[in-house]
Amino acid sequence: MNIGVFGTGQVGDAIGTKLIQLGHNVRMGSRTAQNEKAAEWTKKSGMLASHGTFSDAAQFADEFIFNCTSGTGSVDALKSAGAAHLNGKVLIDISNPLDFSKGFPPSLTVANTDSLGEQNQRALPDLKVVKALNTLSNPLMVNPALVNGGDHTLPICGNDDRAKAKVAALLHTFGWKADQILDLGDITAARGMEAYVLLWVRMFGKFQTPMFQIKIVQ
Amino acid sequence: MNIGVFGTGQVGDAIGTKLIQLGHNVRMGSRTAQNEKAAEWTKKSGMLASHGTFSDAAQFADEFIFNCTSGTGSVDALKSAGAAHLNGKVLIDISNPLDFSKGFPPSLTVANTDSLGEQNQRALPDLKVVKALNTLSNPLMVNPALVNGGDHTLPICGNDDRAKAKVAALLHTFGWKADQILDLGDITAARGMEAYVLLWVRMFGKFQTPMFQIKIVQ
Repeated sequence: MNIGVFGTGQVGDAIGTKLIQLGHNVRMGSRTAQNEKAAEWTKKSGMLASHGTFSDAAQFADEFIFNCTSGTGSVDALKSAGAAHLNGKVLIDISNPLDFSKGFPPSLTVANTDSLGEQNQRALPDLKVVKALNTLSNPLMVNPALVNGGDHTLPICGNDDRAKAKVAALLHTFGWKADQILDLGDITAARGMEAYVLLWVRMFGKFQTPMFQIKIVQ
Repeated sequence: MNIGVFGTGQVGDAIGTKLIQLGHNVRMGSRTAQNEKAAEWTKKSGMLASHGTFSDAAQFADEFIFNCTSGTGSVDALKSAGAAHLNGKVLIDISNPLDFSKGFPPSLTVANTDSLGEQNQRALPDLKVVKALNTLSNPLMVNPALVNGGDHTLPICGNDDRAKAKVAALLHTFGWKADQILDLGDITAARGMEAYVLLWVRMFGKFQTPMFQIKIVQ
């Protein structure tokens, strides 16, 4: 199918490349139609790849758009894509509201009583925002088997149950099994999923590698 | 040895009771010397148990004090215990800055760019604050084998490496193995450990039981 990817960084590259490997047509969106990184990605990725503005990528998408923008740029990206191209579609929101202005470890630009997931949902009320994949490093997003034989946990949340089920089915093609996906409820659970990143960055500092994950045990 | 426990709630009860089972003398501290819950705990716990003010409990402690107060009361409890009775000792800081004023799930009274662990450390600079055990439910604190055969992860942090090693040794007597304890560095890592609680409460809401834990896998 035709899928949009917002953002030209490492996450957008990893997600877009995986989707192409799975046979989808992918359009990478950014602020300008001629973004250099997007053009490079299109060139290396072959016939199924294209790029354009956020609006181009949103319009191109049949149903799914991955939000791989930096957290601080997310709401603006969605607004510039336009409600007409987004309404009724599903946004898989990977973005984290990271603030590196004081160096490492980062803090969050929104936290505790609100979240970027909620901000994104409020900005486009008729877009179906599903927070997912923001709790782990991009190589693991598209290849969960890289740690612990794929045995670990992926929290997701969002207001629309059917949208979450569709996202789980799409993530299944990435290698995520149904019993690894932990549905935490509505989009306000993004407060917990994004706050966890403050622990993640400390563990990253400790391990000196992003190749780790949490597994919930009972 | 003689150990102080600040707080008369479920956490203080669980920790104090475990320490008594291990043969330690435990004094439970609270704002008033005649706190009813502390008196009940002393009565049920036998000869090794006693209670008094925060100051009494701090003075009683040879080396270790467990901070099981509610987050909002922590700094006041430490100040009322007094630097003279705390300096040089080790505070195992279990408290979380939970704000239930808007119901469940709670938010945090301090988060993101500061933490209760740091507030406690700043309030008593010569107390050795080790954040630990704040990431799981009290039955698991004192009996990690209750989930997944005890195979899961306990983050800790603090500025004093020797204090952390002593805490790890004490926790070993609770059932925590050395390779389960994940030292995340100085006390600023409490930002991550406390922020994780925002994810924990969502998982608690999902599972409808606190008997779960995170295991870090690589």
